[in-house]
Amino acid sequence: MELARSIEHTLLRADATSSEVAKLCDEALTHGFAGVCVNPVHVPVASQHLLGRAAVVSVVGFPLGAGSQHSDLAEADWLMNHGCQELDWVVPIGLAKDTRWDEIATRTRALRQATKGAVLKVILETGYFEPEALQRLCASVLEGEPDFLKTSTGFGPRGASVDDVVRLTQASGGRVAVKASGGIRTLGQAYELLRAGASRLGTSSGVSLVRELQTQSERDA
Amino acid sequence: MELARSIEHTLLRADATSSEVAKLCDEALTHGFAGVCVNPVHVPVASQHLLGRAAVVSVVGFPLGAGSQHSDLAEADWLMNHGCQELDWVVPIGLAKDTRWDEIATRTRALRQATKGAVLKVILETGYFEPEALQRLCASVLEGEPDFLKTSTGFGPRGASVDDVVRLTQASGGRVAVKASGGIRTLGQAYELLRAGASRLGTSSGVSLVRELQTQSERDA
Repeated sequence: MELARSIEHTLLRADATSSEVAKLCDEALTHGFAGVCVNPVHVPVASQHLLGRAAVVSVVGFPLGAGSQHSDLAEADWLMNHGCQELDWVVPIGLAKDTRWDEIATRTRALRQATKGAVLKVILETGYFEPEALQRLCASVLEGEPDFLKTSTGFGPRGASVDDVVRLTQASGGRVAVKASGGIRTLGQAYELLRAGASRLGTSSGVSLVRELQTQSERDA
Repeated sequence: MELARSIEHTLLRADATSSEVAKLCDEALTHGFAGVCVNPVHVPVASQHLLGRAAVVSVVGFPLGAGSQHSDLAEADWLMNHGCQELDWVVPIGLAKDTRWDEIATRTRALRQATKGAVLKVILETGYFEPEALQRLCASVLEGEPDFLKTSTGFGPRGASVDDVVRLTQASGGRVAVKASGGIRTLGQAYELLRAGASRLGTSSGVSLVRELQTQSERDA
């Protein structure tokens, strides 16, 4: 798979400005990235800039996964009404820690219902869960039929690992796509995650990754 | 002012469990704290435990201050319907960085309108702003007539400082209360912030603070 088309050019810092978001969008178009991933407050700017030429991705319940279902649904609704095509929702981490699996399935289904026509990715924040708990969590989330399982927020205990990608891929028997995110900064790391089964990479290092690839290609030519 | 009555016993980790929240509530009652501060997902547990004997405090737009007004209002509404008496709302940090002061005033007013009868605290995340920008931000927020200005989320660039407390107190000419939060771990620090003008301290170290005070009192007796 082509690297650039797997990249979601990501800027989720709390203090990001509109002009940084505009630059992010320009870079995404220049390099042919899959889309940009920004906070809800920046979705109107991003969608005005991209005009459908790359996906507008945003986040719900981010990054703690500790809000109410009511606010998550309100955010999803607002995002879809403001040009967002893909929603990355953080699973309710506290409910998972309390092993309230049925409620997690219910909440995922409710969000799926509310986001028909959009791409729904569920962020599992893998750094909080041992392999067995992660497997159980994935089973509950998969009842809601998301489009993607996603590894991390980038604000949690750690970023994406190859093991995470393998586990998330296996959880659905390969039927649900995987987005790796958090701490992806080198080309070696990016290709390892893609080879492990990820089809999307959420990273703020997209430009340096494609430049590294270009340098490598020129050297090899 | 009595130390214990100024403390909001705080647990905002994404992976906090219901039993940790129950313990937090018990400790708040034992030590006579002002209240507990938890994520929305834990508000039902906290309000069942406290039964009005201490305040249930929760957070909106937390910690990035980067969601939509629509989701912030939905969260506030949900919290008030589930036993939360005090709401700590993160100012839209991206809008402040874009110097969109009128929108910040509008959003604060909207939240104030939605939270009549509850205590509204506005978290400024002071670590992102130079003194002049902070002053301008406070002016916009004060148009919405919050009950408190609050320094930090505890997830941002830094915690509360004495200078922050002085600045927030001066911003309203002392008419709006100040909550200091983030990184408050020692008794010396706690008293410095109270002396500077804070009337509430958001900290996860409340129990060790009151024990330190007790040890000190016993030694001095």
